[in-house]
Amino acid sequence: MKLSDEIEFDVRFSETDAMGVVWHGNYLKFFEDGREAFGKKFGIEYLDVYKQGYFTPIVRSEIDHKSPINYGESAKIITTLVPSKAAKMIFDYEIINLSTGKVSAIGQTIQIFLSVESRELELYAPDFYVDWKKKMGLIK
Amino acid sequence: MKLSDEIEFDVRFSETDAMGVVWHGNYLKFFEDGREAFGKKFGIEYLDVYKQGYFTPIVRSEIDHKSPINYGESAKIITTLVPSKAAKMIFDYEIINLSTGKVSAIGQTIQIFLSVESRELELYAPDFYVDWKKKMGLIK
Amino acid sequence: MKLSDEIEFDVRFSETDAMGVVWHGNYLKFFEDGREAFGKKFGIEYLDVYKQGYFTPIVRSEIDHKSPINYGESAKIITTLVPSKAAKMIFDYEIINLSTGKVSAIGQTIQIFLSVESRELELYAPDFYVDWKKKMGLIK
Amino acid sequence: MKLSDEIEFDVRFSETDAMGVVWHGNYLKFFEDGREAFGKKFGIEYLDVYKQGYFTPIVRSEIDHKSPINYGESAKIITTLVPSKAAKMIFDYEIINLSTGKVSAIGQTIQIFLSVESRELELYAPDFYVDWKKKMGLIK
Repeated sequence: MKLSDEIEFDVRFSETDAMGVVWHGNYLKFFEDGREAFGKKFGIEYLDVYKQGYFTPIVRSEIDHKSPINYGESAKIITTLVPSKAAKMIFDYEIINLSTGKVSAIGQTIQIFLSVESRELELYAPDFYVDWKKKMGLIK
Repeated sequence: MKLSDEIEFDVRFSETDAMGVVWHGNYLKFFEDGREAFGKKFGIEYLDVYKQGYFTPIVRSEIDHKSPINYGESAKIITTLVPSKAAKMIFDYEIINLSTGKVSAIGQTIQIFLSVESRELELYAPDFYVDWKKKMGLIK
Repeated sequence: MKLSDEIEFDVRFSETDAMGVVWHGNYLKFFEDGREAFGKKFGIEYLDVYKQGYFTPIVRSEIDHKSPINYGESAKIITTLVPSKAAKMIFDYEIINLSTGKVSAIGQTIQIFLSVESRELELYAPDFYVDWKKKMGLIK
Repeated sequence: MKLSDEIEFDVRFSETDAMGVVWHGNYLKFFEDGREAFGKKFGIEYLDVYKQGYFTPIVRSEIDHKSPINYGESAKIITTLVPSKAAKMIFDYEIINLSTGKVSAIGQTIQIFLSVESRELELYAPDFYVDWKKKMGLIK
């Protein structure tokens, strides 16, 4: 079983570039939007995690671009938590251009848990995160 | 007498928009670059001020656009401190498109002094700022 | 009578800065979001205007900041068309921090009509724009 | 033999986030800065390529973050062209935090050649690009 969320969005004019399409780096903003919507839906937002005493910085991002998004087109992003036993949060993303029906990009981000207090990396998944995964039925 | 600084810069591709020119909102980034270069030159950088116990948030910005900057063109920004007795830092900016020789934009920002500790607004210019202005020969 | 539109939004993490609040320059993105929502509602979007043969570049922006927006807070933007006989589109903006109830910022942008074909400034409001204003009941 | 270029840069305040460090997505802007400096040095800038009739959109990006960059710290980026027989431009990047001496991030981008006229993908490296590689001594 995989947890997934989906949101639609319009492209901002400021997100386009001189080729007339969304500048490639802005997809990381869309991934962040997807991740935050996922967090809001399943109770694991950035601020929820922060209240538990953790930052979750991104340690790896990758994006594969398949087709552009032009200004005026709308899109959706599907954000899926990738199962992992490690002390990491891994998300897969799929961005669909709703005006063309084509996949625009797929990607992945990896986040680690960093103690707000000690600024040290957690080697094991924090208790609150294990509890959350149980509550979501992702582990027993 | 007015304190002024000048820096040259190239436009980033990511700063252009679908009209093929620099997106208007990015001029506030150029103003920030100009302000920081000014601060570095005259010893009044953001972090210098922070060490004195103050944030200096922007409370007002304005930009007048005169002519566009295309991708591939270079530009310079002239940053000038506007004399003021108030507990404010006011900067004027002029952005020149060096490829066309035309003024691209002029603008102004106003910053206030906010105590890092109390998060309260300073009604009078902080001592360190008055001292700095004396040192610069701006006041006696 | 004034035409006005209102949208709510959440702040992106990428829009915050090291002071922990929304970076001041990002308010121009919020203004753009407000303007586009206004355009969608009343049939005067950027692309509608473009199809009529006009770009509408911003020639002036101003922002007055009243109180910050922190990450995790939501906000709304009220976008109002300012009546004008000139060949200009003038919008007023008000951003309310919905988490505190306070006004976060007010601002204004001015756009001109530029012919896509000749890249020349229109000195008189284009016919399609006068027609649109009549249809909206803004003029007779 | 590999072609490589190196530039130093200061972090913009607007590039930081509420964790007080450079927002992860901004590294793609640094990669672009590195790529453009490389292009300027070796005569293969975005606009040089465009004049030959090609766009070179990014089809894949990846970033591995090793350590953060705080506001006020300076950094350098090393941009290296990765040898490839394919109709692609592949760049490796290394970002060093000059204030700490640590590697901040490594990454890679892949660009393809797209005909400006037909908007179709080139399956073979365009002649001008093969010529450029010969001139640089990368191939015989």
